[in-house]
Amino acid sequence: MEHYKKIIEDVYAEVKSVEDIGTLANYIPELALVDANNFGINITNINNTSFGVGDFNKKFSIQSISKLLSLTLAYKLEGEKLWDRVDVEPSGNPFNSFLQLETDLGKPRNPFINSGAIVVCDILLSHLKNPKDDFLNFCREISNNINLNYSEKVTQSEKDSGFRNIAICNFIKSFGNINNDVAEVIDFYFHICSLEMSCKELSEIFIFLANDEFITSKGNKILSMSQAKRINAIMLTCGFYDESGEFAFRVGLPGKSGVGGGIVAIHPDKYCIAVWSPKLNEQSNSYKGMLFLEEFTTRTASSIF
Amino acid sequence: MEHYKKIIEDVYAEVKSVEDIGTLANYIPELALVDANNFGINITNINNTSFGVGDFNKKFSIQSISKLLSLTLAYKLEGEKLWDRVDVEPSGNPFNSFLQLETDLGKPRNPFINSGAIVVCDILLSHLKNPKDDFLNFCREISNNINLNYSEKVTQSEKDSGFRNIAICNFIKSFGNINNDVAEVIDFYFHICSLEMSCKELSEIFIFLANDEFITSKGNKILSMSQAKRINAIMLTCGFYDESGEFAFRVGLPGKSGVGGGIVAIHPDKYCIAVWSPKLNEQSNSYKGMLFLEEFTTRTASSIF
Amino acid sequence: MEHYKKIIEDVYAEVKSVEDIGTLANYIPELALVDANNFGINITNINNTSFGVGDFNKKFSIQSISKLLSLTLAYKLEGEKLWDRVDVEPSGNPFNSFLQLETDLGKPRNPFINSGAIVVCDILLSHLKNPKDDFLNFCREISNNINLNYSEKVTQSEKDSGFRNIAICNFIKSFGNINNDVAEVIDFYFHICSLEMSCKELSEIFIFLANDEFITSKGNKILSMSQAKRINAIMLTCGFYDESGEFAFRVGLPGKSGVGGGIVAIHPDKYCIAVWSPKLNEQSNSYKGMLFLEEFTTRTASSIF
Amino acid sequence: MEHYKKIIEDVYAEVKSVEDIGTLANYIPELALVDANNFGINITNINNTSFGVGDFNKKFSIQSISKLLSLTLAYKLEGEKLWDRVDVEPSGNPFNSFLQLETDLGKPRNPFINSGAIVVCDILLSHLKNPKDDFLNFCREISNNINLNYSEKVTQSEKDSGFRNIAICNFIKSFGNINNDVAEVIDFYFHICSLEMSCKELSEIFIFLANDEFITSKGNKILSMSQAKRINAIMLTCGFYDESGEFAFRVGLPGKSGVGGGIVAIHPDKYCIAVWSPKLNEQSNSYKGMLFLEEFTTRTASSIF
Repeated sequence: MEHYKKIIEDVYAEVKSVEDIGTLANYIPELALVDANNFGINITNINNTSFGVGDFNKKFSIQSISKLLSLTLAYKLEGEKLWDRVDVEPSGNPFNSFLQLETDLGKPRNPFINSGAIVVCDILLSHLKNPKDDFLNFCREISNNINLNYSEKVTQSEKDSGFRNIAICNFIKSFGNINNDVAEVIDFYFHICSLEMSCKELSEIFIFLANDEFITSKGNKILSMSQAKRINAIMLTCGFYDESGEFAFRVGLPGKSGVGGGIVAIHPDKYCIAVWSPKLNEQSNSYKGMLFLEEFTTRTASSIF
Repeated sequence: MEHYKKIIEDVYAEVKSVEDIGTLANYIPELALVDANNFGINITNINNTSFGVGDFNKKFSIQSISKLLSLTLAYKLEGEKLWDRVDVEPSGNPFNSFLQLETDLGKPRNPFINSGAIVVCDILLSHLKNPKDDFLNFCREISNNINLNYSEKVTQSEKDSGFRNIAICNFIKSFGNINNDVAEVIDFYFHICSLEMSCKELSEIFIFLANDEFITSKGNKILSMSQAKRINAIMLTCGFYDESGEFAFRVGLPGKSGVGGGIVAIHPDKYCIAVWSPKLNEQSNSYKGMLFLEEFTTRTASSIF
Repeated sequence: MEHYKKIIEDVYAEVKSVEDIGTLANYIPELALVDANNFGINITNINNTSFGVGDFNKKFSIQSISKLLSLTLAYKLEGEKLWDRVDVEPSGNPFNSFLQLETDLGKPRNPFINSGAIVVCDILLSHLKNPKDDFLNFCREISNNINLNYSEKVTQSEKDSGFRNIAICNFIKSFGNINNDVAEVIDFYFHICSLEMSCKELSEIFIFLANDEFITSKGNKILSMSQAKRINAIMLTCGFYDESGEFAFRVGLPGKSGVGGGIVAIHPDKYCIAVWSPKLNEQSNSYKGMLFLEEFTTRTASSIF
Repeated sequence: MEHYKKIIEDVYAEVKSVEDIGTLANYIPELALVDANNFGINITNINNTSFGVGDFNKKFSIQSISKLLSLTLAYKLEGEKLWDRVDVEPSGNPFNSFLQLETDLGKPRNPFINSGAIVVCDILLSHLKNPKDDFLNFCREISNNINLNYSEKVTQSEKDSGFRNIAICNFIKSFGNINNDVAEVIDFYFHICSLEMSCKELSEIFIFLANDEFITSKGNKILSMSQAKRINAIMLTCGFYDESGEFAFRVGLPGKSGVGGGIVAIHPDKYCIAVWSPKLNEQSNSYKGMLFLEEFTTRTASSIF
């Protein structure tokens, strides 16, 4: 960890001084209100040692990073049958495209594009008694952190402008790949997207994807080793919308981004790192977040390739 | 290596007895003449120890696996400017689609789909004095193997049925992303695709992608460590056409397939493994080859994730 | 009219005996209950003389033919500004495609595909005080026929299976081209589609598109001559989904079909003809309806070309 | 004709003074050399009376208007079998799109987009002994005009920049819908596109599409009445690339445009009118040509609708 600390501090300082050519997400009004200068990093290794710099303790809207948590729970509950309803291929298209959904008859390309995450929500609804509570409790158990919560403000903001996601959900239902009521699926989906965490909380909650031996504070195993590896694989090929290849190319780690400006990345058997900087590049990924991670893995020579 | 030998032999025997539901590639007439029962495996580790089973010494048409060699030489000669002309994103589309080429104004999505490999050939033509000889000599130097050669028969067979590739090359030229004469680019492209190697030769020639310290018999370094990692990253996200996600999900290694039924896969810092079984699944990847590699990485727990 | 009568009777008899290779629309459950053997024709000329054969007096679900009526009213109320929100180009795609809607940023290609008709409904909602009543009264005034009505059964059936149309409406709203509440727009849209008429009623209500001098029983002009011509033009290029070219080619008249198996066609300055036969060809147009009209315009030499 | 003369002169004067917001075609270098101020009109009625204003006697490159002549000859020679190889549907896409060609497995949407015209050329090559001479003689016979010729300069210019058309031809051949050698098909296609005519010659050569009784000076009938009507129908739905609906909507006549700035339009049983103004709108149709024709048909009330 000592080795990483110095590099993190150096790269943090350098990237902080770079001009930020990104722009704040504006399609969810609430997200546009965030202070664009926030910049935080936190790393947690498989021994649960953590280190953070900058705004690593401030909570923010993790948005699509939460798709990793809903996928994990759905995979746990549904097993390999999950993949009958959602594929594991990169989309090669912007994150909210209807094009492939039409060709693929309502089976989303992967669980990290909106359509796929919506189907994952539908699967969870079929399994959970009190979906929103149960999901939150699952997150709290993994992270041993009772401070995790939805933001009702963000949920509401998403609802007011979420016509495209409602369209996607209805479209998939027209192919028979949504079993529950559209309004319920969408309400659950928007809640999950509104989860708030800090970089520290993010790097702690996702360490289970780096650590084959991980068990929760209650003594539960989350996923089998093989399942965790598979989630890492999907992250690598699909975690960054239409910039997944670029992230693999430049950073070389499985990772997942959110339009709130957060990114988590996993080095299997070593660490989980979380970065937050709200301004996004043209592919809707954090501009400085990607910059930081590229430099970090280069200097630590810790790509998986 | 001893550990791997036993597993390779076991999995080989098991997969050999599985019914092969694939079909021979038929769009290049010459490839349809191959004996569909061929099945060979060869592994080479970074100490250059090799082990093979089955038809590991028989040469076959490596087809698109050769795109890895042309990309390597172009990357070496052109450096990072290469990426101005070809992207590094998964296509999310069948391997010969015009769709994205049209949207992306003639910049291929990645160097492993036909369009991208054709642009790579154009780049090589601009650098090499005697392209076909120079490229062959480059391959021979890496592998320290003077027995590598093109198959003129296969080249001719590709030409007689290669209208779609000629279409792609003209289409890209209409966007200004081909600088040389179309007929020359295509002739070079078809030659490269016609390279013949055995599994043993394949696992030996690509060990440079697993070994950061690799130098050729003539004492040359092929690529920098960072460049080799980047090629591995592109392989992982784009190496299997529209089944790249599936290969990452099931096998968990960077790899590249060819319609001749060959697959090479890299475990960075450990080994290169090559498999050959001519019958292809619906995504044009070797049916038994994928089966073997999935089982092999599961039993050896050697996914990169 | 005498000239037409004989030909209509002859062609009716011939087409009646042809084997019907079409299939009943099945995506709206209520439509699948119709007797597939119904077959009726009615012609009305600009002097309001009518002639019918077969089931020309039975009411059926006119479905998309109603898009002609909603377009007429919207054009009357909104004028040429209408075309800022919906285009007049053939789609070249199946009738419910998202593809172009995505490329064209939420502006439907024409008012006869579902997306376009939904925008037309949104425009009507913004103009009408009691949309469903006002629209029905408009239809009754044109046709001087108080027996026109919605079918609540069909409306309900559409709602239960109309996820794709709800998806389209939400999708367009995400681009800002729907001003009213989605649920209200869709409710209105499904009501309009559920209008029921007989062939006789159809040929009478649409005679205003053939007759430049048409005024309603209350003395109102519906559209200017230029506007009526323009609607005919859109019918010719876009009236038959992805078979509009074929209809122009074989029949040579502006026309509009519905998945209930009805077709109306206009000969400007001469007549309006309506056909009903419930079984549809692969492009969702009445199989025997098209057959009849092709033969009818051939024998009467009454194509507009 | 007297009635038309006055209107033509008036509208000509008005449109001449309008600012031309179009741009010269630049993808064929030779076309960019034309004087953009040329503006000519010529009308010919079915009694062969002609009237012209402006530059109606200057020859220009008729480009895609020639597709009407090659289609006519192919239809004459091949009969209804022609439609097995090319469809009659509007494309709903820019004129050189690969998208639909891929979906439709190499069968072009209609004979007026480049792909369709290339297939038509292939059909002609299979029928004609000396294709270029035979085709020219056919044109000369229809128009009773031995002054019709190809422009070798334009042909050469198209060849030097025609990679996209070569791509299309190879692409179609990969689906088996081109029987002759690609180079020969393309050479023939580029020659046909290079035909030069004046407005006067254009309105005279195409009067056969307005006149059911037309016979050539040698006493030959070109097409049956039904065939001529069908060509008019295809013109109406497909004659203006992705602006066909707009032309039908605004002008209301079957017509065909070329990137040389020419347009011909047919009023069945009445006249053929040709307009030339080189600057094109965004859909590659003559800006002033469309303006003139819209105003002309409005004032003469001579739309077919």
